[in-house]
Amino acid sequence: MKNAILASTSTLHGQTYLEYLLPEIQELFKERELLFIPYARPGGISHTDYTDLVKKSLENTGIAVKGLHEYEDPAQAVQESKGIFTGGGNTFLLVEKLYRNNIMGLLRQVILQGTPYLGTSAGTNIAGLTMQTTNDMPIIYPPSFQTLGVVPFNINPHYLDPVLNSTHKGETRETRIREFHTLNTQPVIGLREGSWLELKGGNITLRGNLTARIFKVNETPFEAEPSSNLNDLK
Amino acid sequence: MKNAILASTSTLHGQTYLEYLLPEIQELFKERELLFIPYARPGGISHTDYTDLVKKSLENTGIAVKGLHEYEDPAQAVQESKGIFTGGGNTFLLVEKLYRNNIMGLLRQVILQGTPYLGTSAGTNIAGLTMQTTNDMPIIYPPSFQTLGVVPFNINPHYLDPVLNSTHKGETRETRIREFHTLNTQPVIGLREGSWLELKGGNITLRGNLTARIFKVNETPFEAEPSSNLNDLK
Repeated sequence: MKNAILASTSTLHGQTYLEYLLPEIQELFKERELLFIPYARPGGISHTDYTDLVKKSLENTGIAVKGLHEYEDPAQAVQESKGIFTGGGNTFLLVEKLYRNNIMGLLRQVILQGTPYLGTSAGTNIAGLTMQTTNDMPIIYPPSFQTLGVVPFNINPHYLDPVLNSTHKGETRETRIREFHTLNTQPVIGLREGSWLELKGGNITLRGNLTARIFKVNETPFEAEPSSNLNDLK
Repeated sequence: MKNAILASTSTLHGQTYLEYLLPEIQELFKERELLFIPYARPGGISHTDYTDLVKKSLENTGIAVKGLHEYEDPAQAVQESKGIFTGGGNTFLLVEKLYRNNIMGLLRQVILQGTPYLGTSAGTNIAGLTMQTTNDMPIIYPPSFQTLGVVPFNINPHYLDPVLNSTHKGETRETRIREFHTLNTQPVIGLREGSWLELKGGNITLRGNLTARIFKVNETPFEAEPSSNLNDLK
């Protein structure tokens, strides 16, 4: 019985880190303990600094935070944790380090068994079948692009609509996802900042106030409404 | 003696494909023959359609264009070509296909030996040491991120300055390159649309009317002026 929040972003414009997700976090981590996976290192910050940011952001919640890098045996830490949060940053780095520490499969297993899981950005991207709809630069070569697959589709966090009248010739997000679908068949959900997927038991629900953009191979993309059930997306 | 044009983009806003580069192309391909590498398939278009676009764009130049996919032996075609153009699209797909057809090393060799080479976007990105500063989605898993290395640094095509007052929380291009530099030491040149690198003999010169942004590990990024010599960038 899955119990997870997969958020597009950790932070909304004008807010502090995790601020808009605090009610969800309070509800999700009932055991008041959280293992933080800091591997994605946004902007290259250290594991310790990244973990301190999470500790500080959650200090009024009563949730105790410990970084995965603080454990000698990361696999055991994942296995025994009462709740897990994977933060954003660079998805290639995150995936490489999860494989290198032999915890990709284990992380999948504990999430499927019901360990509460929060992902933001890269931490959400890896919940999909593969990391291949990430927006990040390939700063390190991971042993595989396969990820947790706790949802039966791919996720594009920080989804951005095409900028009207843009003069820039780089590809839009939609064009990139269309290119993905020339070689891959799983659906992709473009999650805008402020949206998250709630996985509860067998249900996948779109949360937040915004619609999400759904891309299926050989179909015209469409918008999913807030609160809609996405169980059939596969 | 290298003889190459490495352009940020194939197309400028309001212009047709390759329009702004036509004088350079006329000068570069003196033998009036060009082997086109269509592997990057922008937006997923076919090799044939992509090659037809190039043929049409160059029809008034007297340069004969043939697509690499039209040859039974791509390695031999690269070896014997009088000039090569690699178009943009998805860099992961381009690199995967170059490796799969065993022509990555050969392409490097003929460029170093002086076969005229034009790259745009992904075709420029692969001229660097690695493809790790691409903007593209990892839609396919290539056997390596190493690329041609005909310049001793990495290239970020379609370089974009941070948008002032943006409310979007996805990483800026500069942040992504900073993350690259937490794990890699080679310099990166951010080439804005309308800029290109001219490789002639031993010289590397920035061409076009714009400055380019140079990123070196542990240094503050700076701007290189148009027409400046980049021989010392390594």
